[in-house]
Amino acid sequence: MLVAGVGLIGGSLALAARERGLVGEVLGFGRGEENLELARRKGIIDRYFLRPEQIPGGVDLLILALPVRAIIELGSSFVPALGPGGVVSDVGSVKRKIVEEMERLLPSSVSFVGAHPIAGGEEWGSGAASGDLFAGKRCILTPTEKTDKKALERISSLWREVGARVEIMEPGLHDRILAIVSHLPHVLAYGLVNVLGRSAVDSVDLKEYCAGGFKDLTRIASSRPELWRDICLLNGEAIADSLECYIGYLGILRRWIVEGRGDLLEEEFARANETRRQIP
Amino acid sequence: MLVAGVGLIGGSLALAARERGLVGEVLGFGRGEENLELARRKGIIDRYFLRPEQIPGGVDLLILALPVRAIIELGSSFVPALGPGGVVSDVGSVKRKIVEEMERLLPSSVSFVGAHPIAGGEEWGSGAASGDLFAGKRCILTPTEKTDKKALERISSLWREVGARVEIMEPGLHDRILAIVSHLPHVLAYGLVNVLGRSAVDSVDLKEYCAGGFKDLTRIASSRPELWRDICLLNGEAIADSLECYIGYLGILRRWIVEGRGDLLEEEFARANETRRQIP
Repeated sequence: MLVAGVGLIGGSLALAARERGLVGEVLGFGRGEENLELARRKGIIDRYFLRPEQIPGGVDLLILALPVRAIIELGSSFVPALGPGGVVSDVGSVKRKIVEEMERLLPSSVSFVGAHPIAGGEEWGSGAASGDLFAGKRCILTPTEKTDKKALERISSLWREVGARVEIMEPGLHDRILAIVSHLPHVLAYGLVNVLGRSAVDSVDLKEYCAGGFKDLTRIASSRPELWRDICLLNGEAIADSLECYIGYLGILRRWIVEGRGDLLEEEFARANETRRQIP
Repeated sequence: MLVAGVGLIGGSLALAARERGLVGEVLGFGRGEENLELARRKGIIDRYFLRPEQIPGGVDLLILALPVRAIIELGSSFVPALGPGGVVSDVGSVKRKIVEEMERLLPSSVSFVGAHPIAGGEEWGSGAASGDLFAGKRCILTPTEKTDKKALERISSLWREVGARVEIMEPGLHDRILAIVSHLPHVLAYGLVNVLGRSAVDSVDLKEYCAGGFKDLTRIASSRPELWRDICLLNGEAIADSLECYIGYLGILRRWIVEGRGDLLEEEFARANETRRQIP
């Protein structure tokens, strides 16, 4: 197995697969040697390479665990390392663009299966990797009519064996769901921090007054900017749609606040209260 | 001391003051007998009353720890219980309207000092009260030119002795700061849950796909609806202003997403990243 991008997700998958004896030698690819060296010392990978052309041939399984744009940009550069019948999969948070591009860029001798394990957090790097990261978590696979059935079964089985609940979904549907439950919240958190940062309230340092609520809400604003820039670019349509809904709804709440419509505000807040309670 | 509203904040203040020997008998007032009875059993209060007119006279210190609208509605009903020179304070998250109304409604024989300890969370009721809740937390006092100096010193000393860092601030400034760091985030969290709840994505139950980020961001949507309705009504102007800023900024981010302006998005996300890191 070759893991391109030995970060939290790629490193955890490699570790989980090793711990369960699902893979033989694990090769790592990345740009940061310090991170790869740490991964090697932690036993996540056996060897690593800093350039795709250095990777020896005969790789049977390639996991693209790179940031979403790098998956598309670098994906095909690993093809020479793949043996015939090799399977390529990814872990990107955006699926439609990645699946389209991979199916276009990869030769017919290798099979691609789009995947997105819904796990992770603000931590990054192989130092944060854990063999239990995927236990009980969802992993969405997004095959198309072009996807090889055996390759799909192989990737599906890999994720099940590391403890994930595998679900099959159309790539575009995946992207619309993730836009609301994950991509929109990140944009909102970044946005709230910047509104705070730019608000001039009598030259008070507003950061000093932030308590638990603000901190909870903006925790994900610690996520890597370049990663979320790329997600916004690759899933722009669905994110822009959900942002539009949200902006429209905030406008309604704002009008009710200005008009003193306590009855309507309470009804909406109570509805949110109830829905929030139902989130598993 | 009489605590009107023996919930998380009122109960914790009573408990903290008792534990430090700062008060004699503690009377409780509230509407929920079960909660008051629990407070009595936990040793937070000695006796309780369900109606203001039942409270015996001679109370020297009254803490209005009720929801913000109830502070204004019920505040003056405790006046008969207060002895001459009695001091009244509150713990409301909104200050300008409360201070204005209390100064208008209370007779000149008693003194009012507006206060807001920045502590708490989604839990409520006397069962959640803790004598350490205010340790190291900010408590903002909002005296005006009408505020009695001795009363201010007394309330200031009470909060310092229970471990809070006391800060003096003009009521309107308090409200503009809190609108951004606390009131706006609550509206945003309620709003995001409702946008999720109302989004129809191929009849998928979106709640099932919410991971850590969404949950962090919407944790405060578990707060009590009627409490936040009242805060929105009593601090409507400042909240509407900060909502307007936020809506405008989201509109800009949305345009950049639609236009594929990765450079600008990355710059904004990186700025948020940096500002978030500076929050204590």
